Amino acid sequence: MEPKLTLVGAGPGDPELISLKGVKALRAADVVLYDALVHPDLLDHCSAHTLKIYVGKRSGKHSYRQEEINQLIVDYALTSGHVVRLKGGDPFIFARGKEELEYAETFNIDTAVIPGISSINLPGCFGIPLTHRGINESFWVITATTSNGKMSRDVALAAQSKATVVLLMGLKKLNEILEVFRKANKNELPVAIISQGSLPQASMLIGTVDNIKGKVDALKPLAPALIVLGEAVGTHPEFYVKAESLRTDLLSKI
Amino acid sequence: MEPKLTLVGAGPGDPELISLKGVKALRAADVVLYDALVHPDLLDHCSAHTLKIYVGKRSGKHSYRQEEINQLIVDYALTSGHVVRLKGGDPFIFARGKEELEYAETFNIDTAVIPGISSINLPGCFGIPLTHRGINESFWVITATTSNGKMSRDVALAAQSKATVVLLMGLKKLNEILEVFRKANKNELPVAIISQGSLPQASMLIGTVDNIKGKVDALKPLAPALIVLGEAVGTHPEFYVKAESLRTDLLSKI
Repeated sequence: MEPKLTLVGAGPGDPELISLKGVKALRAADVVLYDALVHPDLLDHCSAHTLKIYVGKRSGKHSYRQEEINQLIVDYALTSGHVVRLKGGDPFIFARGKEELEYAETFNIDTAVIPGISSINLPGCFGIPLTHRGINESFWVITATTSNGKMSRDVALAAQSKATVVLLMGLKKLNEILEVFRKANKNELPVAIISQGSLPQASMLIGTVDNIKGKVDALKPLAPALIVLGEAVGTHPEFYVKAESLRTDLLSKI
Repeated sequence: MEPKLTLVGAGPGDPELISLKGVKALRAADVVLYDALVHPDLLDHCSAHTLKIYVGKRSGKHSYRQEEINQLIVDYALTSGHVVRLKGGDPFIFARGKEELEYAETFNIDTAVIPGISSINLPGCFGIPLTHRGINESFWVITATTSNGKMSRDVALAAQSKATVVLLMGLKKLNEILEVFRKANKNELPVAIISQGSLPQASMLIGTVDNIKGKVDALKPLAPALIVLGEAVGTHPEFYVKAESLRTDLLSKI
């Protein structure tokens, strides 16, 4: 028996967005440790003998600390063989994959990584490109919730750039985030909020820095949600329609 | 016959990094229009009747202009049915997916998008997290080559931030990029260059803003390559070893 750890990106929700290689790893797994955001259908790829263990950190329920998960990985690899650590999205985009790899490596456990489609790849599915030729040349991905619970200072710098800004885990901090963009005089900047990304109940709200909060209060999109801010968001047809009706309103007032 | 366009992300090279949903689309395709960076094995998922057309834009060979590709998509959808546009990486990360969707939609062709794993998801496979708890809270993805051929101004702003900076298509502009980071006094900032990402011949060079160019000149990594700059790169074990041997050298000189 060879102890082994494979970190696998489960993708952004839809169980068909895992990679072929990820499925292969699940088939070969002796133990799977999976997160709250992993779709349950993915576990059907495992063989009959695979031990499937939930180690989610969803708020409100019993949650495993990262140190406990690291130790579970090592214990199972040493006693049972091939551990697949199945993580929502990509194992390295705000997912602490490196910490799990490093801990296993201190026990001389072989490691491998299979990347996954992240929720940051979803705006395109909603007609919102992260970059659009002639509009911008970059996108900046930020976790709104840092390890100390405060908002990242990168948000203020991002608000000054031409990058499309993608914020993860920011729904509860929306007011604070919008305030940063207002301070940078970006009141009219297009904003999209994409909730439950690739699942059947997915939804998107679209507006501007100044009016998106009202829509969120009215329609209450569920977490997890992506907040996407930037001129590239304005290429969405719904945004153009609204901008035009807005212009008509303004003209009628003249 | 229903004209339809599905944009499919082929993933970052390795043919097993396409999604299950992407494979389904290939199986259902009447026509596949594929790029230079798409692995040829992916076309094996198509059925026997599928028409497979290369529309790559690789430098040196005959290249299709974007307008020609847009028109081919529409022509094939209207005459043959379901067109799959198979694009390297993700269809919306510097891939002009939006332009293809919009053109098809002006002909009332149904469209769908299946995201893909991008080359920006690869650093983790090489032991380099884009973000690492306690070190940084964001990453900034920039195309080094803009539509007018000049370097994006975002690079200068990125050099001032704590974000991990990921540059695509930047190998030919490496000197210019490093100069921007030197001007921001980031001479010792860790840098990794990941060449041919997920393919068997993949390679990585690791160093600092000041010394990476020498390594590139000596070892000549092939395009496409990712350039990754940031303190999170310094968590790679090889970087620590080098930093320590460097320190030993300095101490021995005292």
